[in-house]
Amino acid sequence: MEVVEFSPTPEQYAWTFGGVAPIRHVRPGSLLRLWTEDAFCGNLRDITDLPSRALTMPFVNPQTGPFYVDGSEPGDTLALHFVDLTPARDWAASATIPFFGGLTGTDRTAMLQPALDERTWIYHVNSARNSVEFVAHASDFRLELPMSPMLGTVGTAPAAGEARSSLVPDTFGGNMDTPEMRAGATCFLAVNVPGALFSVGDGHYRQGEGEACGTAVEGAMHVTMLVDLIKGGAPAWPRIETDDHLASVGSSRPLEDAWRAGQRDMISWFGELYGLDPLDGYQLLTQISEAPLANVVDANYSSVTKVAKRLLPTATAYQGMHQKMRQLAATIG
Amino acid sequence: MEVVEFSPTPEQYAWTFGGVAPIRHVRPGSLLRLWTEDAFCGNLRDITDLPSRALTMPFVNPQTGPFYVDGSEPGDTLALHFVDLTPARDWAASATIPFFGGLTGTDRTAMLQPALDERTWIYHVNSARNSVEFVAHASDFRLELPMSPMLGTVGTAPAAGEARSSLVPDTFGGNMDTPEMRAGATCFLAVNVPGALFSVGDGHYRQGEGEACGTAVEGAMHVTMLVDLIKGGAPAWPRIETDDHLASVGSSRPLEDAWRAGQRDMISWFGELYGLDPLDGYQLLTQISEAPLANVVDANYSSVTKVAKRLLPTATAYQGMHQKMRQLAATIG
Amino acid sequence: MEVVEFSPTPEQYAWTFGGVAPIRHVRPGSLLRLWTEDAFCGNLRDITDLPSRALTMPFVNPQTGPFYVDGSEPGDTLALHFVDLTPARDWAASATIPFFGGLTGTDRTAMLQPALDERTWIYHVNSARNSVEFVAHASDFRLELPMSPMLGTVGTAPAAGEARSSLVPDTFGGNMDTPEMRAGATCFLAVNVPGALFSVGDGHYRQGEGEACGTAVEGAMHVTMLVDLIKGGAPAWPRIETDDHLASVGSSRPLEDAWRAGQRDMISWFGELYGLDPLDGYQLLTQISEAPLANVVDANYSSVTKVAKRLLPTATAYQGMHQKMRQLAATIG
Amino acid sequence: MEVVEFSPTPEQYAWTFGGVAPIRHVRPGSLLRLWTEDAFCGNLRDITDLPSRALTMPFVNPQTGPFYVDGSEPGDTLALHFVDLTPARDWAASATIPFFGGLTGTDRTAMLQPALDERTWIYHVNSARNSVEFVAHASDFRLELPMSPMLGTVGTAPAAGEARSSLVPDTFGGNMDTPEMRAGATCFLAVNVPGALFSVGDGHYRQGEGEACGTAVEGAMHVTMLVDLIKGGAPAWPRIETDDHLASVGSSRPLEDAWRAGQRDMISWFGELYGLDPLDGYQLLTQISEAPLANVVDANYSSVTKVAKRLLPTATAYQGMHQKMRQLAATIG
Repeated sequence: MEVVEFSPTPEQYAWTFGGVAPIRHVRPGSLLRLWTEDAFCGNLRDITDLPSRALTMPFVNPQTGPFYVDGSEPGDTLALHFVDLTPARDWAASATIPFFGGLTGTDRTAMLQPALDERTWIYHVNSARNSVEFVAHASDFRLELPMSPMLGTVGTAPAAGEARSSLVPDTFGGNMDTPEMRAGATCFLAVNVPGALFSVGDGHYRQGEGEACGTAVEGAMHVTMLVDLIKGGAPAWPRIETDDHLASVGSSRPLEDAWRAGQRDMISWFGELYGLDPLDGYQLLTQISEAPLANVVDANYSSVTKVAKRLLPTATAYQGMHQKMRQLAATIG
Repeated sequence: MEVVEFSPTPEQYAWTFGGVAPIRHVRPGSLLRLWTEDAFCGNLRDITDLPSRALTMPFVNPQTGPFYVDGSEPGDTLALHFVDLTPARDWAASATIPFFGGLTGTDRTAMLQPALDERTWIYHVNSARNSVEFVAHASDFRLELPMSPMLGTVGTAPAAGEARSSLVPDTFGGNMDTPEMRAGATCFLAVNVPGALFSVGDGHYRQGEGEACGTAVEGAMHVTMLVDLIKGGAPAWPRIETDDHLASVGSSRPLEDAWRAGQRDMISWFGELYGLDPLDGYQLLTQISEAPLANVVDANYSSVTKVAKRLLPTATAYQGMHQKMRQLAATIG
Repeated sequence: MEVVEFSPTPEQYAWTFGGVAPIRHVRPGSLLRLWTEDAFCGNLRDITDLPSRALTMPFVNPQTGPFYVDGSEPGDTLALHFVDLTPARDWAASATIPFFGGLTGTDRTAMLQPALDERTWIYHVNSARNSVEFVAHASDFRLELPMSPMLGTVGTAPAAGEARSSLVPDTFGGNMDTPEMRAGATCFLAVNVPGALFSVGDGHYRQGEGEACGTAVEGAMHVTMLVDLIKGGAPAWPRIETDDHLASVGSSRPLEDAWRAGQRDMISWFGELYGLDPLDGYQLLTQISEAPLANVVDANYSSVTKVAKRLLPTATAYQGMHQKMRQLAATIG
Repeated sequence: MEVVEFSPTPEQYAWTFGGVAPIRHVRPGSLLRLWTEDAFCGNLRDITDLPSRALTMPFVNPQTGPFYVDGSEPGDTLALHFVDLTPARDWAASATIPFFGGLTGTDRTAMLQPALDERTWIYHVNSARNSVEFVAHASDFRLELPMSPMLGTVGTAPAAGEARSSLVPDTFGGNMDTPEMRAGATCFLAVNVPGALFSVGDGHYRQGEGEACGTAVEGAMHVTMLVDLIKGGAPAWPRIETDDHLASVGSSRPLEDAWRAGQRDMISWFGELYGLDPLDGYQLLTQISEAPLANVVDANYSSVTKVAKRLLPTATAYQGMHQKMRQLAATIG
């Protein structure tokens, strides 16, 4: 197995999906050992580091990549399996950012109310206990929370010559901010340009569904992942397979459109796997769908449509790619 | 303990929340043994019974109630604990209804496309296996699914002299269609009028999150529930407590507003339980929220904000009402 | 012509559409001379009268009515022609109300930001110049604006046994808050219950499209109107005909659904008037629609789809009812 | 005055805002005489030319540009005045495109209903009468409509390294599809990158507000325009000044957010012009705003907030740039 190790210098960060030259070529079947900087570029290290002073917009959410996958062409399906996500620091940060987040006016949910106060919360990592600690500002409340590492951002270059900020989720993946993107998951993404040009970033030591305030427990991450390619079969929206679930992630506004997109794609997937016609698939999904929100704060909102495999007949998605990658992952130290 | 048994005749069904005279008075602390008809009024019994012929609009989703809770006044909190939900028939039904559902145009998401085909699916109940069976129309696909009984509709009379169709969810509860409303759950609802005038109905033998096609596995239900009252403390939105979770259910359009309402209410609840100020509550919720959708098909959409108790410090909500009701429920045969 | 004169006492105000007994019977063909109180119940008379102190929720937006139209049955079309709207006071009021309005968080567009400051603006009427005067609070800016009287609220009782707050617009009309509802306009509304039970209120001495802050130049009004009935033909959404335009008013959330509903209804109207099939009607409307917003602040938002008659072939809507009422109106002193 | 004449060859079309090298440099104060191809690349010439066969996605809506404006830097304001828009052909086209438009499901307002039928309508231009003719497909209905030329697309390169499809409107302008963009209008756009890199295209011989079916009366256009630059003062959203109106164009989803953005920006403009504080500006706008929709079909929806100058005190926006350009335009043959 070919192994690619890469840790970007700040000059090598990618700030968009699309519009960036590849940083490395990788062959299908390769293992990548990467490092990703946090969404704040590591600049929020203390509760006195406030976003309006410590961040330099638009240089947030730096991506590690893009990687050119040899042989990949538009219409193909990129398979990315996350073998391991390990926090790369002993602290992480979250913050309220003026006019950003789900419970505040923004540049387009434009309100006349003043911005919420800026606050930065620093979470200390307890590796032995595999936990982080929330420390309130306005009272002496403290709470230890389980670590649950995930990647907010996984995406390919978009179609139609577009380049999108790393803050955006859409059909190409990107900043979906779903807790489903954790070790053990395989993400299937449409290839839109030759080489796919995928990148990853935005490690979260944990995140709730919806990511209400707009920033999770943001931390630098060691990412171990497998890359493979399926010719053809590009899904309309990013799909995720785990040992337990199939999922599709729709991203749009309003939020019902994000949900509709993911539901529609899962009905297509049922058709591919079981030959169900769309109405029968619609009916079945109605009774078995899980529908956890991913984010309601980004440039598009993301909604996950998820189905437990234990409820479904056995089926082989993408030629058994997930199982194959799981087995390969088990051999990796 | 006072016990009220009631099974409505068709003439006694309630079709709205508000605007209906009470069918019974109940004292706080009472046990109710009720029967609820299914949302189709029992009229879909065969796959040849199509909604456009078998249903008489607007007479769908009949409610059992309303019940006048003695001593309850506007501003109080009604506590409804579901002791047991047992299917009352050995079959249930679901259907696509023209211009109703999440993946079709409707009267207001108005499209020029023709309606989806009508189909009725009949689910046979296997009591021994505690399951229902999905049978596809267009292929020979069949699938046994676990039973998971819940109530789509639980609500009080609305404020401001309104009467709302039993198809509507809002601050008064109503047609929230969330799978969280199952045996073991305690639902806290604002009292808006003297006597609260609550009713229940819309039994589902199971339902996925979002209820995509607009109808779950709809079936008549035996409902055993406890009713109690807390003076004052009316929540802004319906809240649910189980042994494992706290939840708040926001209902609005677009879907992001339903989510915002539930998130905002949970932050208020954190304030009540832990003294967290709103920004600290916002931060904490960002990292621990579960956000399963309830329905994306009704007159308002419903989004659940849910937090696992195991992540939180021990706290007593509503004077320990849920624990008290759980203990009482354990004594009921 | 039968003439009904009615000016409600405060005890006679209606606060909902539906759920209220008729205050008067009127025969089709009658002339009504009414008086309507302003949306604040006349309680904001000085800039020191702030909504949170001067208003008693939910008793706002009092309606004059409901009127039982003899012979009207569900499925019929009520025609209401506004002969004259004359301000009944020499002042009017507007205000910012906490957590109400288009550029502030609300109970469902729930934000954590504090409420906007409350302010009340009093507009003095200059009858001779037919104008009102805007006086800024924070600077010495003053501006004389033309009077342009309209009614925010015109509606029938809703279907399905519902009663809706007078703050709500929907298929039954209600609080549409469109400047199109002025003298010279004929409004066509579906009859949903025997007698139609329509009411009117919420006079505005002028209002911009969208009604951004949630309250127009609110003032008591003398309303002179004609009432008539067309058997059958109930429109899906309220329609308005003037000498110059045809219009349909959709009300929903999100705002695109309000727009879709009005557009869809206009395409239906094109079919009725010109025999255009839906796709040809869609194409024609695409090139000639005016689309002024009505309100983006109420329980549902309202969007007007409007077409200039000068662009269309001559056609007779509703058996020439608008022309007939215009002629009749011309004979009234 | 420097004059730049440019008519692109097909190889020179730009398909995105951003991500394209400048086709020409222009100095502030220059006159441009341009030609723009229609949004269908001229490929719909007969009613038998259907979009699914005649268009090659994503190569639609070709732009003429981008132009590098010498001396322009991020934060500056680009002023584009349209001196003349003259149809460049004696026909134009419109069409229904599968899963595109306001009254059909789309890739994200994902429905299970089949696509609407494809139809192409060809509009013949009558230059003498300055009109186009609508010809129905399904009946013998024909209608002569006044010509009313406008540009659907006017935009600069976006910020943050993004490149956006020419189908997208946002803060950089782009595919706003508003009938306000006609001869006599001055458009003010934020400069986001050195040189501004603006382009124009998407001529419409006429269009209704909302552009319901997604395509206007699309035709090639001769565009005569003036370009100038104001240092600093970049507006949050595109602004338009005419002899009669001030306008701001918000673009987002859901539609209420597009409206909010434009309203918020107009309140800022009131502050700049009259020193009104935000709450007084909010109040004034509430009473005088016009709010015609632009499009409810593109990747973002666009809503215009428009105020009649006759209602406002005299004021000078952008150092009198509009008046200056109008005077200059009057000197051009």
